[in-house]
Amino acid sequence: MQNNRQINKNGELQHLLTIEGLPASMLHHILDTAESFVSVTEREVKKVPLLRGKAIFNLFFEPSTRTRTTFEIAAKRLSADVINLNIGASSQSKGETLLDTVNNLSAMHADMFIVRHAQSGAAHLIASHVAPEIHVVNAGDGRHAHPTQALLDMYTIRHFKQHFHELKVAIVGDIMHSRVARSQIHALTTLGVPEVRVIAPKTLLPKGVEHLGVHPYHDLSKGLKDVDVLLMLRLQNERMQGALLPSAQEYFKYYGLTPEKLALAKPDAIVMHPGPMNRGIEIDSSVADGPQSVILPQVTFGIAVRMAVMSILAGS
Amino acid sequence: MQNNRQINKNGELQHLLTIEGLPASMLHHILDTAESFVSVTEREVKKVPLLRGKAIFNLFFEPSTRTRTTFEIAAKRLSADVINLNIGASSQSKGETLLDTVNNLSAMHADMFIVRHAQSGAAHLIASHVAPEIHVVNAGDGRHAHPTQALLDMYTIRHFKQHFHELKVAIVGDIMHSRVARSQIHALTTLGVPEVRVIAPKTLLPKGVEHLGVHPYHDLSKGLKDVDVLLMLRLQNERMQGALLPSAQEYFKYYGLTPEKLALAKPDAIVMHPGPMNRGIEIDSSVADGPQSVILPQVTFGIAVRMAVMSILAGS
Amino acid sequence: MQNNRQINKNGELQHLLTIEGLPASMLHHILDTAESFVSVTEREVKKVPLLRGKAIFNLFFEPSTRTRTTFEIAAKRLSADVINLNIGASSQSKGETLLDTVNNLSAMHADMFIVRHAQSGAAHLIASHVAPEIHVVNAGDGRHAHPTQALLDMYTIRHFKQHFHELKVAIVGDIMHSRVARSQIHALTTLGVPEVRVIAPKTLLPKGVEHLGVHPYHDLSKGLKDVDVLLMLRLQNERMQGALLPSAQEYFKYYGLTPEKLALAKPDAIVMHPGPMNRGIEIDSSVADGPQSVILPQVTFGIAVRMAVMSILAGS
Repeated sequence: MQNNRQINKNGELQHLLTIEGLPASMLHHILDTAESFVSVTEREVKKVPLLRGKAIFNLFFEPSTRTRTTFEIAAKRLSADVINLNIGASSQSKGETLLDTVNNLSAMHADMFIVRHAQSGAAHLIASHVAPEIHVVNAGDGRHAHPTQALLDMYTIRHFKQHFHELKVAIVGDIMHSRVARSQIHALTTLGVPEVRVIAPKTLLPKGVEHLGVHPYHDLSKGLKDVDVLLMLRLQNERMQGALLPSAQEYFKYYGLTPEKLALAKPDAIVMHPGPMNRGIEIDSSVADGPQSVILPQVTFGIAVRMAVMSILAGS
Repeated sequence: MQNNRQINKNGELQHLLTIEGLPASMLHHILDTAESFVSVTEREVKKVPLLRGKAIFNLFFEPSTRTRTTFEIAAKRLSADVINLNIGASSQSKGETLLDTVNNLSAMHADMFIVRHAQSGAAHLIASHVAPEIHVVNAGDGRHAHPTQALLDMYTIRHFKQHFHELKVAIVGDIMHSRVARSQIHALTTLGVPEVRVIAPKTLLPKGVEHLGVHPYHDLSKGLKDVDVLLMLRLQNERMQGALLPSAQEYFKYYGLTPEKLALAKPDAIVMHPGPMNRGIEIDSSVADGPQSVILPQVTFGIAVRMAVMSILAGS
Repeated sequence: MQNNRQINKNGELQHLLTIEGLPASMLHHILDTAESFVSVTEREVKKVPLLRGKAIFNLFFEPSTRTRTTFEIAAKRLSADVINLNIGASSQSKGETLLDTVNNLSAMHADMFIVRHAQSGAAHLIASHVAPEIHVVNAGDGRHAHPTQALLDMYTIRHFKQHFHELKVAIVGDIMHSRVARSQIHALTTLGVPEVRVIAPKTLLPKGVEHLGVHPYHDLSKGLKDVDVLLMLRLQNERMQGALLPSAQEYFKYYGLTPEKLALAKPDAIVMHPGPMNRGIEIDSSVADGPQSVILPQVTFGIAVRMAVMSILAGS
């Protein structure tokens, strides 16, 4: 996929489709902007007028209350008008093509599309067809990318660890099917993290993953040794029922994060998870709710990061 | 259930979970505040900026367009940002626990949760886990409580009858399964109504109901004698199909409110119903639309009462 | 159906239920007002405060993301509060009647209802029961009328052709079942178009259609000769599967708009479609996306036309 269309000829962000190919300076610019919004979200009146009168469409071809809500809140705090469209229920079922849907919404003078789609490349396809004044944010496409999730993860790491260039970071779980993992890997390597590990059973680790600049591990205990940051992934239910895994119990035994396993990491290591968690499957409740967990701060920073992305794209 | 958590140590309302245990002074304070909002709702521009920038989440784990809409309108008239979440469709089906859902929304800096849930105690559970700056309103939990419905009923009674201390009030219908009846009984007794009657077939009247300070009746004609206010309850469809009742026709014959039955009450008695009505089952259309019906004023006052509750909880 | 209730005794528009019976001056007034809103929609801040504090309810008894979205955007650009109600899912399934639903929403001090319903006459029924300060807009009722669609079509024709009084206009497709066609016919004849043709297979053309002042054709090639404007209709899926049509392929062969067929019309003829399109059934993609297509401008003008209708009805 061509990613260069997300940067325009003035070097500005036109769309946010994937982390891949974005320069470190752009990532830092987004994180710095997000920092200025963290305080907005703690004020009595949590609104700034940056996007007043802008029309932002949540185009969710795949349901996700959580992600849709974070974008909706972020947009409303920027004073934008938000229109939620749950597609699949209507126009798609009437046989309209994806691009006809998008062309119609563009003709209504939309300013931004937040796109969630089960197919990899959907956000790119839309971005390649919209008018130049319209911005597209990929809110998760198939197994491909989920850039705002990776950005809020980077914000959280920077918040708790200050610098990227001395960290050991481990991503644990179903790397194979995870758009979150793919975006995290690109973000971490771009920001200069010297050691990124991916830890998974063989059936859930894509072949050749080391070409992305990461170190594969199949043994959780070895992989966690001395790491500063643990990025846990959600195990999709369908994987547990399929042929790729023996059982949820088995998975928890070998790859579930327990206090004992966590003790192998650095004492001040932080634990992250994109949510929603499967407690007792990929993570033990005592870890999820424990002192090293920064899972709820991730959510808080997620609003500020999405405000930052939207205001960089559409702010005047 | 502990209800004292709805009053904070300064004696202010922190959450509205149930009428039980609230002092009469608090109920009057809410009704007085509502009175000041009735006029807002009749103005050309129906908005006041009291909750500008506040994020109010409608957390509906059980569908209810009507109740959700009244809260949404009330919040928008206070200039709040409203986010509607129909849970069950998404995170819950992904296996996330109720508390994880709530913790996540709290981390997004929510200001208020309006909670509707099929399980008694759900709103209490949420209230006992949220951060101190977040307020919870119970919009109906199982068979337990529906406090804003009872408050709008009290507002309506006060509007038409001025005082509570000389009234005879009858609640008619499925007392057993009704969270509305339970909240009405607590409100009426707290506000000093000297005679509260509950009228229902034996199968729909809980044992020991007289311990709540009410007088049980099985005969509608006897129960309606000389009452000032009739609070009709909705008969749930599932009751009609179950073993508790012979048939809808039979129910109407004995407990349906007809003009003849209504004539047994005081000539200026008012008739109320929380909606939606089953015309021809618990109430005859000629009564529902007749001169003694105040069912539509209830709806109007319901907006003002919900504005009052929200502004008392979250207004600065 | 009585349509005179949409004009009040001062000659002002009280409701918009159907084009039938509206004077040409009223249609021009709506189109002129829409023209003033086209520029709003292209501004940096796309909002005007005309309906600030007004509560507009989208009452969709039949799902339609596209139409609902256009009304929602139009209302938000006028600064109104919009409440979306997908009825059928809740109150209707609880057995509440249409009028009880509407009476309840009226009691919440609604200012306007946008009504989409599968039954012809639903919007009229609602309009005949609401309080005098409430306005009703028909967003499509059964096979009867879809007046805002016809108005945006007229806006588009006027934009591209300036005048109505020298045009030949052809409506092509399932005239029989189309509320769009019915509203278009009334609008075109009222605005003085001298020649309106309807082109359809015999099974999809109502008997006596010529009494509406139009010329029926069964042969697309003959019907398109020298026309200035082509209004294509969407072929509903259920027609294709029913007994009225042999097959979609057959339909396309005889009634699908191809470049060859289009060449029979005037060289500067414009092609319109209300969407969503069935590409390859009623219209060929090369025509839909070709230089004579004004299908996307229709969508843009649709927002301005709906802003005009709403502001004429409820603006102060």
